[in-house]
Amino acid sequence: MNRHPSAQVLNVRDTLSLIDCGEGTQNQLLHYKISHHRIRYIFISHLHGDHYLGLNGLLATINFQGRDQELTIVGPPELEPMVMDHFKYSGTHLKFPLHFVATQAEHAEKLIDDKNFTVSSIPLNHRIPTTGFYVQEKTGLRHINADKCEALNIPYAHFGELKEGKDYTDPSGKVISNAELTFPPSRIRSYAYCSDTRYKPELAALLQGVDMMYHESTFLHELLERAKETLHTTALEAGRFATQCKAGKLLLGHYSARYQDLTPLKEEAEKEFESVLLAIEGGKYAVD
Amino acid sequence: MNRHPSAQVLNVRDTLSLIDCGEGTQNQLLHYKISHHRIRYIFISHLHGDHYLGLNGLLATINFQGRDQELTIVGPPELEPMVMDHFKYSGTHLKFPLHFVATQAEHAEKLIDDKNFTVSSIPLNHRIPTTGFYVQEKTGLRHINADKCEALNIPYAHFGELKEGKDYTDPSGKVISNAELTFPPSRIRSYAYCSDTRYKPELAALLQGVDMMYHESTFLHELLERAKETLHTTALEAGRFATQCKAGKLLLGHYSARYQDLTPLKEEAEKEFESVLLAIEGGKYAVD
Repeated sequence: MNRHPSAQVLNVRDTLSLIDCGEGTQNQLLHYKISHHRIRYIFISHLHGDHYLGLNGLLATINFQGRDQELTIVGPPELEPMVMDHFKYSGTHLKFPLHFVATQAEHAEKLIDDKNFTVSSIPLNHRIPTTGFYVQEKTGLRHINADKCEALNIPYAHFGELKEGKDYTDPSGKVISNAELTFPPSRIRSYAYCSDTRYKPELAALLQGVDMMYHESTFLHELLERAKETLHTTALEAGRFATQCKAGKLLLGHYSARYQDLTPLKEEAEKEFESVLLAIEGGKYAVD
Repeated sequence: MNRHPSAQVLNVRDTLSLIDCGEGTQNQLLHYKISHHRIRYIFISHLHGDHYLGLNGLLATINFQGRDQELTIVGPPELEPMVMDHFKYSGTHLKFPLHFVATQAEHAEKLIDDKNFTVSSIPLNHRIPTTGFYVQEKTGLRHINADKCEALNIPYAHFGELKEGKDYTDPSGKVISNAELTFPPSRIRSYAYCSDTRYKPELAALLQGVDMMYHESTFLHELLERAKETLHTTALEAGRFATQCKAGKLLLGHYSARYQDLTPLKEEAEKEFESVLLAIEGGKYAVD
């Protein structure tokens, strides 16, 4: 996110999503040893080149390397014909099921309803229609207390029901409560991706309590006028927005190339919000 | 050309042309310190991703960095609408004159008539319409013999006519022959770019005496059947074609990723042609 154009991989319970796909993303995936076979969803926030020009190349490579699992691309409605044009003109025969979900940037809506999580759009404010993505885990299954289940000779066939919260009734009719046999499910986590956008405080209601928010901070606040002109956000405003959202952590990114040293951006955001991280090329960030 | 997708920069008397523009080309230009401001023409051979997916990103960067000189893109007719779609959807306002010249892959034709050189298409044989590019310098001007002109007091104002081959008549009416006052023009050079294509010997008539020929050699000849299936050329065939063209030098490229060591490709081509070079990433090759 620093010197290369935008691309993030989000891992939710081992389902991988690629969020934005700037030029060279397929090389970066290779570099960081993230197999594109594992990517189930690709989300494209908007059609500025630094956010999507790596998509056609990645899809060509995925196809060439014999994928057969389905892939879903979420993005602006113009993306589908552009991708299909490339397939057509390059004479590419698609070997895997490819689905498109079109976004609109007027209001928030649910885009993806996966087994483990949902993804909704975040209507951002940029020079062209742009959406962020709000990823929320679904309630998880309870975890089996293996020691207790073994001690009480609970048959493995019942573990599925135990994970769903049901009590266990043994052959004699005795009921053992679920709470004795399981641990609570993992906490539900959420992640919001907000890039590129002008600072938009009215979105805070939508993102209340988000665990981690990635927010663009293209400029320092001394360039506020430039941020307003180009519809970007300053680091100070990103910090302010994180506070308004009662976010857990703020992950800054999408820095103007003018900033070699990113520390001033972090320090500026910290004036408004406590827990600030700088997104750097190749960095890994835990949402907990 | 080895590990990165296809892109070459051709310098003819300080006019630069970019030939093919795979993903990441703008980064490679930066890496090799070749200013995109100097590029006057971009030639795209065909619409497989590894030959053109870097174009939109490069154009966006060129535009963003304030180019005002004109740029001409030569390529398949579908290229223009794809480039214009990207400009439209990304809300890009083009700041420099951009021209398109559409190719067709049925027969050779003149595409560019520059002050210093012409470029004609080479109708190749690949899975989708593909053209190579045949670049030929125009006859150059004669070079002034500065010592002789000074000794004979030839006025500077006449140098233009001398370069064009005219004799000089002094104020007394005495004629001094051009041959006494100038050296011959530099030799006319030519370069042919042939990628991607099945071996196509009938093109040899078109390319007789080419000084340097870049020709794809995707496979070793032991994979001839694969080359025929995918419409590529083996190194042996590339060497044979160079001999048929009476080429000066053969520059091999577009190697299958299966070949880590390229020496066997060179050795194979050398069985059919003497002067073989391997195109490698970042390499510079003089046409003389």
